[in-house]
Amino acid sequence: MGSYAMTGGATGIGAAIRKSLVSAGHQLIVVDVKDADINADLSTAEGRAEALAGIKARASDGLDGFIACAGVSGSVPVKPLIPSVNYFGSVELVDGLRDLLRTRRGSVVLIASNSAPMETRQDYVDALLAGDEAAARAIAEDTDGHPLYSGSKQAIARWMRRNTQSYAAEGIRLNAVAPGYTRTPMTESVASDPAYADAIKQFLDSIPLKRAGEPEDIAKAVSYLLSDEASFVCGSVLFVDGGHDAMLRPDSC
Amino acid sequence: MGSYAMTGGATGIGAAIRKSLVSAGHQLIVVDVKDADINADLSTAEGRAEALAGIKARASDGLDGFIACAGVSGSVPVKPLIPSVNYFGSVELVDGLRDLLRTRRGSVVLIASNSAPMETRQDYVDALLAGDEAAARAIAEDTDGHPLYSGSKQAIARWMRRNTQSYAAEGIRLNAVAPGYTRTPMTESVASDPAYADAIKQFLDSIPLKRAGEPEDIAKAVSYLLSDEASFVCGSVLFVDGGHDAMLRPDSC
Repeated sequence: MGSYAMTGGATGIGAAIRKSLVSAGHQLIVVDVKDADINADLSTAEGRAEALAGIKARASDGLDGFIACAGVSGSVPVKPLIPSVNYFGSVELVDGLRDLLRTRRGSVVLIASNSAPMETRQDYVDALLAGDEAAARAIAEDTDGHPLYSGSKQAIARWMRRNTQSYAAEGIRLNAVAPGYTRTPMTESVASDPAYADAIKQFLDSIPLKRAGEPEDIAKAVSYLLSDEASFVCGSVLFVDGGHDAMLRPDSC
Repeated sequence: MGSYAMTGGATGIGAAIRKSLVSAGHQLIVVDVKDADINADLSTAEGRAEALAGIKARASDGLDGFIACAGVSGSVPVKPLIPSVNYFGSVELVDGLRDLLRTRRGSVVLIASNSAPMETRQDYVDALLAGDEAAARAIAEDTDGHPLYSGSKQAIARWMRRNTQSYAAEGIRLNAVAPGYTRTPMTESVASDPAYADAIKQFLDSIPLKRAGEPEDIAKAVSYLLSDEASFVCGSVLFVDGGHDAMLRPDSC
């Protein structure tokens, strides 16, 4: 079977992806802040370098796939974690694993969000895409978490699409999944707070399919994109959101 | 197994979809201009009504899925066929099968195109979305085939997304696939013409994955979207184009 690596496999969407890859018989290297094959803090350049070194040591004969799943929500107390973990923790790892992926003509799935097309601070997205972590972190210090989150996901989607051609020339497919609201330990902790419970319920009722996504819904999309079934799917952002994006942006295509 | 219906199952992408559904053991009703379970001319309102009546007679206990695949290219000599077959032949059939789809909480896949976001005549797209076939056909009389084709696909994608919420409320998932250049009898006849062969070769080299799509690539995406694996994918346009759209519109998300 295949040789895979991923970030953020401990809980939520990442845990479902981990389970689906392992149960399909693949070898999988998991990077997370703790309890993983490689414990590393993706919010720092040093932690990202450690993660890369650890993966390279364990997958010296190449990778069939990599899933950049680690991420923090917009409600994290230390706002600069959002650009550092979500964006740099994703794209620096893909970039650093390019040689290993080339060896086996691997496939990459990044986790964006159906909030990626939403309004955000464009100077922030530009700083991310320019690779200017210091500037992005400085903007994060005095910006609300929500646009920082959606902007980090917009930048991930754009980075993926801007790099599609160059990676494809080496036989590496880049794609992204854009989940909608998904039931994870993180979102459940908010939903169970009496202060937010009604608003969350109302929000869920507004999703065309009338439910939240389950981590397994996202994992199935990731598995599809990684598989040979999707060998001509390249540079695509697959929305898995129960119809939410279509409702909000019907004429976007 | 499931009960499915489709249009355009005779050749190319449609034939590959037909084969994959039949080989999965599903019951399938095929509508096409000839050699099909139901022979009907989707370019006329009468032909579309015949197709609907034929499907209803054969699938009275409901449909698990419907694939609107019939379409003509931009190089068809009679230009008004483009809006009539591509757009009305798709959306009128989905609309007419809604009751059958509701019965089994079915899933619909429309075939758009990665040319859907390209420049077209907006009055034409507006006429299509308004259901004004006469106006769309009148515009088609004096317009180039290419924008008529891409506009018909843009309208399909928008119709799908505008209707996502209403169908989802009845448990019906609408999605679309947006194929890039795909090797079919239609495209091969152009590619083998010495007058176009060089241009086509150059075009194929410009696709990030350096090849045309195969009908099976598109059929696999359709199978994925129809399946329970994609039960939270709703209102999505899945590009299956070897990276072409990402190359042309990197910042579109």
